[in-house]
Amino acid sequence: MEQILINGIAADYVSATDRGLHYGDGIFETIACIGGQPVFLAQHLHRMAQGAHRLDISFPGEQLFRGDIGRLLAGRQGDSVIKLMLTRGPGQRGYRCDTRQTPTRLSMLSDWPAHISRWRQQGINARFCKTPVSTNPALQGIKSLNRLENVLASNELGADADEGFMSNTDGHIIEGTMSNIFAIMDATLVTPDLSQGGIEGIMREQIIALAADNNIKLQIRPIDREELLLSRELFVCNSLIGICPVRQIEQQAFETGTMTDTINELLQRRIDADAKAAA
Amino acid sequence: MEQILINGIAADYVSATDRGLHYGDGIFETIACIGGQPVFLAQHLHRMAQGAHRLDISFPGEQLFRGDIGRLLAGRQGDSVIKLMLTRGPGQRGYRCDTRQTPTRLSMLSDWPAHISRWRQQGINARFCKTPVSTNPALQGIKSLNRLENVLASNELGADADEGFMSNTDGHIIEGTMSNIFAIMDATLVTPDLSQGGIEGIMREQIIALAADNNIKLQIRPIDREELLLSRELFVCNSLIGICPVRQIEQQAFETGTMTDTINELLQRRIDADAKAAA
Repeated sequence: MEQILINGIAADYVSATDRGLHYGDGIFETIACIGGQPVFLAQHLHRMAQGAHRLDISFPGEQLFRGDIGRLLAGRQGDSVIKLMLTRGPGQRGYRCDTRQTPTRLSMLSDWPAHISRWRQQGINARFCKTPVSTNPALQGIKSLNRLENVLASNELGADADEGFMSNTDGHIIEGTMSNIFAIMDATLVTPDLSQGGIEGIMREQIIALAADNNIKLQIRPIDREELLLSRELFVCNSLIGICPVRQIEQQAFETGTMTDTINELLQRRIDADAKAAA
Repeated sequence: MEQILINGIAADYVSATDRGLHYGDGIFETIACIGGQPVFLAQHLHRMAQGAHRLDISFPGEQLFRGDIGRLLAGRQGDSVIKLMLTRGPGQRGYRCDTRQTPTRLSMLSDWPAHISRWRQQGINARFCKTPVSTNPALQGIKSLNRLENVLASNELGADADEGFMSNTDGHIIEGTMSNIFAIMDATLVTPDLSQGGIEGIMREQIIALAADNNIKLQIRPIDREELLLSRELFVCNSLIGICPVRQIEQQAFETGTMTDTINELLQRRIDADAKAAA
């Protein structure tokens, strides 16, 4: 991280009693800032407010986060990454908490990752991970700080793979360690059903919306490993990488084809429209 | 917390980049200190070393933790609680990590909770929680910092219940929010099978061992809610409360009977033997 604001104050340390540290009792968002402007900020803040509501963490309001982001990005024209976190705040020992307590708000600025442009141009190598996605309806859809499974799956990647595909314990492909997955099968866009686990990314949401707006056939349904390998084209998405074609999963190569390019172009228009609306 | 050592130094703050905070990338132990002596310390440190091994976090060695504990307990004759944590340490943005990095070691001292003696004498009121235990074989048995489900289940308790019983998504009772569960049915001790989720507590392990040593019939197997309610006696255990009888689950009352007392007595002997061996 280059710069951190904790509850609006430049700082590098949090209380060792913070419930974010002890229990992962909190939520986060990762936001691309292109040319000094956060992308889909309203959507990120909306998801954060929803997550806080589900966890019964008192949400400090969008304006405080917007204020932090304005300060972090002041004078920056280049690309960078903002990570926002909201934890339940410091606490006593024990799981029980006061749901009215003042949360800890962290807003963090990092450099734009150097590998992203290469990934977008050349596509990525993926592999299947052994670490499964947890099944828990109570946590489903919350971008919480309980991310140990993503860490373990990432540690499986080794030097050759850029991203790993995680399944649930039923053997259905759910998501990448840090991305959502879209396959193109029979001129239809197919993405895993996340009702039993996984995180519904902001870019995934945008791609689902643009498919509807542009009469692109879309299916949200369970997909298994064998079916995924039969896809014509395959791509992953997240807030930082946008859309990245998958060039290869283990031994299986994929076309980096025309439908991915079309969707990428339509997504770019939505990103540009968002930037225009925010300016 | 009354006193905190971070990497052996008295401190109240951790790096805001710590992966324990960002991802719950770490493990912990909670240890009863009775009369100034940690109970079953060897077992707690052994589980911590195992957890670190499974997560590929470099374990700093038992002696560093033992040194911290010695400093925190110096001159204390009363009862207190030590919580140990080990996180992967500070990191850059992103799930991937360097598994050889230096972890963050936290050793924390708290007051002994006032309610425990009342709970042990009078028994506790429990309820069934809606929040399920996650199913994830990769995390199974690791006392990790991903504890959001325990927090959410605890928040269901309200003013009347002391503890909540959590099930997995298959409807089997797994554990309390902060305890393991034992039922007595037909003069047999029965405790939930934790091979699909839940934490194998140190006290649970001790009770399983003492059952074997004393020819008490024991079954480790799936239990559902209806069967649990038919138990003759019921108790929960953890490192702090030892054994606490369950007086009531919602509308259903239980005997606080003789077999619980017998097991409690046998457990106390093991605790005394541990204290003697450590002294």
